[in-house]
Amino acid sequence: MNAIILSIGDELTSGLTINSNAAWLGQQLSTLGMNCRLQLTVGDDQAAIVSAIKQSIPHCDVLLISGGLGPTEDDLTRGSVAEALDEPLVQDPSALHDLEFFFERIKRTMTDNNRLQAMRPRSASCVKNSCGTAPGIIARSGSTQIFVMPGVPKEMKAMFEQSYLPLLQAAAGGVVRQIAKLNISGAGESWIGAQIADLMKRGANPAVGTTVHDGIVSVRIYATGRRDQVTAMIAEKTAVVRQRLGALIFSSDEITLDAVVTQHLLQHHQTIATAESCTGGMVAMMLTNFPGSSKCFKQGWVTYSNESKATELHINPELIKTYGAVSREVAGTMATQARKQAQATWAIGITGIAGPDCGSPEKPVGLVYISIAGPQSPDDLYIRACHFSGDRHSIRLRSSQMALTLLRLKLLGLDPAAILPP
Amino acid sequence: MNAIILSIGDELTSGLTINSNAAWLGQQLSTLGMNCRLQLTVGDDQAAIVSAIKQSIPHCDVLLISGGLGPTEDDLTRGSVAEALDEPLVQDPSALHDLEFFFERIKRTMTDNNRLQAMRPRSASCVKNSCGTAPGIIARSGSTQIFVMPGVPKEMKAMFEQSYLPLLQAAAGGVVRQIAKLNISGAGESWIGAQIADLMKRGANPAVGTTVHDGIVSVRIYATGRRDQVTAMIAEKTAVVRQRLGALIFSSDEITLDAVVTQHLLQHHQTIATAESCTGGMVAMMLTNFPGSSKCFKQGWVTYSNESKATELHINPELIKTYGAVSREVAGTMATQARKQAQATWAIGITGIAGPDCGSPEKPVGLVYISIAGPQSPDDLYIRACHFSGDRHSIRLRSSQMALTLLRLKLLGLDPAAILPP
Repeated sequence: MNAIILSIGDELTSGLTINSNAAWLGQQLSTLGMNCRLQLTVGDDQAAIVSAIKQSIPHCDVLLISGGLGPTEDDLTRGSVAEALDEPLVQDPSALHDLEFFFERIKRTMTDNNRLQAMRPRSASCVKNSCGTAPGIIARSGSTQIFVMPGVPKEMKAMFEQSYLPLLQAAAGGVVRQIAKLNISGAGESWIGAQIADLMKRGANPAVGTTVHDGIVSVRIYATGRRDQVTAMIAEKTAVVRQRLGALIFSSDEITLDAVVTQHLLQHHQTIATAESCTGGMVAMMLTNFPGSSKCFKQGWVTYSNESKATELHINPELIKTYGAVSREVAGTMATQARKQAQATWAIGITGIAGPDCGSPEKPVGLVYISIAGPQSPDDLYIRACHFSGDRHSIRLRSSQMALTLLRLKLLGLDPAAILPP
Repeated sequence: MNAIILSIGDELTSGLTINSNAAWLGQQLSTLGMNCRLQLTVGDDQAAIVSAIKQSIPHCDVLLISGGLGPTEDDLTRGSVAEALDEPLVQDPSALHDLEFFFERIKRTMTDNNRLQAMRPRSASCVKNSCGTAPGIIARSGSTQIFVMPGVPKEMKAMFEQSYLPLLQAAAGGVVRQIAKLNISGAGESWIGAQIADLMKRGANPAVGTTVHDGIVSVRIYATGRRDQVTAMIAEKTAVVRQRLGALIFSSDEITLDAVVTQHLLQHHQTIATAESCTGGMVAMMLTNFPGSSKCFKQGWVTYSNESKATELHINPELIKTYGAVSREVAGTMATQARKQAQATWAIGITGIAGPDCGSPEKPVGLVYISIAGPQSPDDLYIRACHFSGDRHSIRLRSSQMALTLLRLKLLGLDPAAILPP
C-alpha cells in the first residue's frame, strides 16, 4: 500500500513552522506497514494545492491531506479538493448542524465564514472534529482514498486516530508494524550500538536502530508482519537487547528517567535531597517533575558559591582550599551533608566545570564529580568522576541525567562501577 | 524567483526524524524574498529521487536538495542527480584530494565507499564541506540551478551559508527580506496580538506576526524590499511595536531572558538568591544558565516540604499553619529569608500548586505566588498572585519565567503592577 502525505500552509513553506504533522503521519503509516512514498508541502495557493492533489492521486492508494480547513480566506483545501475531483462544493446538513450546535454552546455568533466549513465536494463525506470546528473530508478518486484533516496538530491527531486509522487498518489487510522502545542512560550511543551491532543489520525484520533525544539513547525495535506474529517477534528481539544491555535499560516506551526514580522512591517510602553546584538546580527540577514528588523530595541546595557550600552545607572551607571546589572530596561531602541535614534516605552531590571558561589542564571543562550518599552504612557513599563533552547546556544536562542514573542503580542495590561502561 | 526544496531520506518519510532542514531552508528563501512553491520529501529510492528532480526542474529557478550524500549504499543522491541530468558520474580530482587529506588528518583509512563521495555529474561542480566529508554539488539544467547539500543539519547549514547563499543573493537581484524579532515576557500572545492588531494586517509590508516558543512570545517584523530600504522599514515598524509594548520587551533576536537578567546583575555587581517550592529548582537553573553566573548567583533553596521551609529558611510553622504553604505571606517570607541568609542583593520566593492534584476551589491548580525581595528599603518586597493554565510542566515553566520577568522589572526600577497586564 502506497501513501502520499500532502501538507498545506504558507507557515510551512516559509519555514516559520516546522512540519511535525508530516513526521507524525509518516510514523502512523510505518506502524501500519504502509509505504510513504512522498511527502509534499505547498503554500496557501489553490492552483498549487489542486496540482499537488491531481499529481498525487495516480501514485498512491491513500492520500493524507492536512491543513487549510479553517474559516479564513486563506483556507483553500476544501475548494481545492473539489476542483481536483472536478465536482461542485455542496453544503453538508449534518456538519452544518454540528457547527451551529458548537457555536450555540460557546455562546458566540456563527459567521458566514464558519458556515463555509460545512461545505464538501459532492461525492465526499464530512468527518466529525472532536476538538475543533473544522470537519474533515473523506473522498475517493478511482482506487485512491483521500483523507483530509485540519492542520492544528491536536485536531489532526484526534481525527486521524478516531476516523481514519480504523479505515487504514482495514485497508492494510492485516499487515502491521509494531514498535518497541527501550530507554538507556549511563552509556553513549556508539558504545550501545557496538553491543547490538549484529542486530542492527539493514533489512532485518525485526529491524533494530538507535536514536538519541535530549541525551537519552533509545533502542527501537520494529517488527513488520501479521497482527498475530508481531508481538512475539518484538518480545523475542527485546529479550536479546535486554540481555545485552541489562541494568542500563531504565524503561520502555515513553517512561522518563525522573519518573522511574521518583516512583521507586515513593513505592519504597524513601526520600531524597540534593546539593548542586554546576547543575544549578537541574537535578532538583528533574526530581520534582513527576506529580506527587513532594512526598519524597525533602530539600535541595544550589550551592554555587564556596561561601554557600560552607554556610549552608557546613563544608569545611579547608577541604575546599585543599582539594578545590571541584573535587571528589567536596562532591562526597556535599552528598553526606545534604543527606544528614535533610534527614533523607538518599542524597546527591554534584560539583563540576560546565564551562565554557574556568577549565584547566588538570580540571578541564566537562569534569564533573557526582556522589550518592545512601542508607546502607555510615559510609555508604559512591563517587564518580565523569568527563562530558559538549556545550554548557549539554554538560549540565548529562551531569543531571548521570546523577539520576547513579541514584537509580543504587536504589536497585547495584554497583554503578560494575554496570556502567568506563 | 521560485524555489523547490527536495529532502531525501527514509528517516523523513517514515517520520523517525522531523524535517527541520526544509523549514530552515524555507526561512532562508523567505529572507531572500524568494517564493518556496513546493517542498518534497522522498525516501532512499533512486527512482523516486530521479522522478522528484525531473518533475521539479521545469517549475523552479532554484532546486535545493538535501540528504543522501553519505558514504553508505543507501546514499543515492549523487547518482540520482546524474540520472536526472542524463549524464555519467565522474570523479572530481579536487574533491578526492580533500577527502584523502581529511582521512590522513584523522589517521583513518579511506574506504572505497568514501571515495565515491568525490563523484559528481559530468557538467556539475563539487562544493567543499567545511564540517564533514561529503562534498556538495552545484549543477544546472536549462535555467534551473541545482544546489545539493548533506542532510546533517550542521553540515547543510554551513554549506548553504558559505557556498549557496552568496549565489542566491546575486540571483535574487537585490530584493531581500529582513527580519527583526522582539521578545516579550509577562503577557500572553492574545493580549500582545490585541495591542498590535492593526500592524498584523495580511499583505502589509513590513509584515508583523507573533510566535510562541517555550512560553516566550516573540513579535516578528519582516520587511521585503531593496537592500538599502529594508533596514529603515524595519527600524520604523520596530519603533511602533516598542512604543506599544514598552518594558514588556526584554530583548531582540536570540537573546534569552536569563541572559538579560544575569548580565544586568553582573554589570551592576548585584547578587541573587532563590527559594523555590513548586518550581523545584527551575528558577535557580535558569539563573545559572549563563556563563559567569557564579559571580552573581549566591544560593538557591528548593524547599519543597513544609519542614524544609522551617528548618532551612526559618519560616515560622505557625505562618504556614495560618495561611497555608501556598500563600502570599509564605511566598514573601521565603524571599526575605533567602535574601537575608544568602546576603544577596535580591531574592526570589515561589510557592504554588503545579498540579495535577492538590488543587481546591480557593487554591486551584495553577495558582502561584511569586515574590521579589530587594535592597530599596527594609520592606522592599513585591508579591504577585498568578494564575497559570496548562499541564504541570507548563505551569512550572511559566512560573519560572514570570519570576525572572518580575526580577527584570525590579532591576530596572519599574513597578511590575504598573507594567504587566492584569
